[in-house]
Amino acid sequence: MTQRIYNFSAGPAVLPLPVLEEAQRDLVALPGVGMSVLEISHRSKAFDEIIQGCEADIRKLAAIPDNYHVLFLQGGASLQFSMVPMNLMPAGGKADYVSTGSWSKKAIKEAQKVGTVNVAASTEADGFKRVPTQDELKLDPEAAYVHIATNETIHGVEWKYDPEVGSVPLVADASSDIFGRPLNVAKYALIYAGAQKNLAPAGVTLVFIRDDMLARSPQGMHSMLDYNTHVKNKSLYNTPPVFTIYVMRLVMKWLIEQGGLEAAERRNKEKAGLLYDVIDASGFYRGHAQADCRSLMNVTFRLPSEDLEKQFVSEATKAGLDGLKGHRSVGGIRASIYNAFPIAGVESLIAFMKEFERTHG
Amino acid sequence: MTQRIYNFSAGPAVLPLPVLEEAQRDLVALPGVGMSVLEISHRSKAFDEIIQGCEADIRKLAAIPDNYHVLFLQGGASLQFSMVPMNLMPAGGKADYVSTGSWSKKAIKEAQKVGTVNVAASTEADGFKRVPTQDELKLDPEAAYVHIATNETIHGVEWKYDPEVGSVPLVADASSDIFGRPLNVAKYALIYAGAQKNLAPAGVTLVFIRDDMLARSPQGMHSMLDYNTHVKNKSLYNTPPVFTIYVMRLVMKWLIEQGGLEAAERRNKEKAGLLYDVIDASGFYRGHAQADCRSLMNVTFRLPSEDLEKQFVSEATKAGLDGLKGHRSVGGIRASIYNAFPIAGVESLIAFMKEFERTHG
Repeated sequence: MTQRIYNFSAGPAVLPLPVLEEAQRDLVALPGVGMSVLEISHRSKAFDEIIQGCEADIRKLAAIPDNYHVLFLQGGASLQFSMVPMNLMPAGGKADYVSTGSWSKKAIKEAQKVGTVNVAASTEADGFKRVPTQDELKLDPEAAYVHIATNETIHGVEWKYDPEVGSVPLVADASSDIFGRPLNVAKYALIYAGAQKNLAPAGVTLVFIRDDMLARSPQGMHSMLDYNTHVKNKSLYNTPPVFTIYVMRLVMKWLIEQGGLEAAERRNKEKAGLLYDVIDASGFYRGHAQADCRSLMNVTFRLPSEDLEKQFVSEATKAGLDGLKGHRSVGGIRASIYNAFPIAGVESLIAFMKEFERTHG
Repeated sequence: MTQRIYNFSAGPAVLPLPVLEEAQRDLVALPGVGMSVLEISHRSKAFDEIIQGCEADIRKLAAIPDNYHVLFLQGGASLQFSMVPMNLMPAGGKADYVSTGSWSKKAIKEAQKVGTVNVAASTEADGFKRVPTQDELKLDPEAAYVHIATNETIHGVEWKYDPEVGSVPLVADASSDIFGRPLNVAKYALIYAGAQKNLAPAGVTLVFIRDDMLARSPQGMHSMLDYNTHVKNKSLYNTPPVFTIYVMRLVMKWLIEQGGLEAAERRNKEKAGLLYDVIDASGFYRGHAQADCRSLMNVTFRLPSEDLEKQFVSEATKAGLDGLKGHRSVGGIRASIYNAFPIAGVESLIAFMKEFERTHG
């Protein structure tokens, strides 16, 4: 049995052990194929089954309506920060962006290269400890779309509601909480997510795009940057990341076996709840995010001093609890506990936190 | 022992068996790390060692001069078809492209979205059976750059010389023959290659860019499309395809162990030579490419009729020789025999060809 530690990394992140074991077993030769999945052609029957099976499972998990396309792209959410405005905002147009943390800000920066960005609300003055309420959103009814990031990995804040945006299309970067809870796809015109948190290893980006959005792409776009290219070619315009999609397929199967998104949310609420309870009961640990906006995926908290935080991370690492250092822009501790993160790891962290508080508090 | 067949696919393609076995052995937990390489952070020490080790091996293999940057990107050669002109051609500028097959044509199509493309030579009228001679190149000394595809996967033709282009920067798509033979990097200002043929599984693109090219990128470019972003961030601006780079690293180690690029070329010449000899000695098989432009990587040939070609592919597949069907735009048979393709597989194909000719000729 190979020794594994607990991986609290914000992404790339932990994958389900049965998925790793199946990928390992079949790595040299896929059963019935005689080649490694690392070697098979993206035009082969074997890969057709993988990508179509993966899409079918995704559609089933998230109840994706028929008028949405499911795309498997490359370049991460970072390339989507550009592709969304390039395709959806007419040249010199305008769009509403809600700024709730580092990732929203990166999306805004790229959108400003295409047109005018109206920041419909920002919680930056509050240190990105929360998302805005519906009342705070200053929406422009003529915006090309409204953009939100459903979960901010770095600050550990998460939208607990789908904002009402009238008839303006809603676009979401759901990279860090996709499939961690049920998703109301029909509320959104486009959802994108880098896969390396809840879906798969790094190297593939999932996009759900409503059919009517495709007509917006300007003529003469570069092929790889035009959603129409990928829709028309069913994500096979050029060679996709075959292996990464194969692992995503295994993760989707695992997620269905585990009871789907409602069950995932129950488990995630339980795991996050255990941690937030310890933080709230302690005078030593202090949560970063406002209680009603706390992420189920990224639990961010501080200790009384930066020295103690350093010591915490260093001792935790020695105890086999890896990746707990918060992002430099927020500091402190961040425990990322995505779908595949086991509750036993949360319990280990809690035991460690209690002991650390006892000896250093 | 898992049953493996011979994979003649044009890409994704066969990988070295020792690489697959090492990746398999360590898939659930990387030794000394306790996490799968599918799960580790791209900001971790473990990944630093992987990507830096990979770059060091690449620099060693190809003797890359110090004034070149080595980048690990996403989006395949297809995204490079756009990034090259976006970065290297001033808006409304012009560039020279040599058209030697389907991939050159795709590169030209994207470049035309940025500026004026002068087709410096085209062998399309000859059915892309050869590359042009130096004398045929109608080069514009004021072009922003000259673009070639060093090997055309579909037609099976390969440049046997580095064209002389004076002081104009030379750019190459080397996706399908990179590291199949020694590479004179200093002759080129930029070389790019999708990894899924000779380097790694699908999902990463290698770029070598000479330092002086970076100043050409226009202000205000989208971050992910600007080479400067990736140079400044050492390919870690956003999450790279961690696992794919890890496998690339294993392949580079294997290639060095096998004696480097000169030794690879010797083996490739031997493998391709065996096949071309059978084709030339036969009145039954007919090579597609002109003899002096024949690819070492993709051996393309025809049979007397399309019916016989269908039968050939179908019987070969049953005999464990997979992926031999030529691209629909050329027809016939294509045997892709990249670095990792074993000579035993070439010998099997030859035995099959001789028997097929004997029974159907």
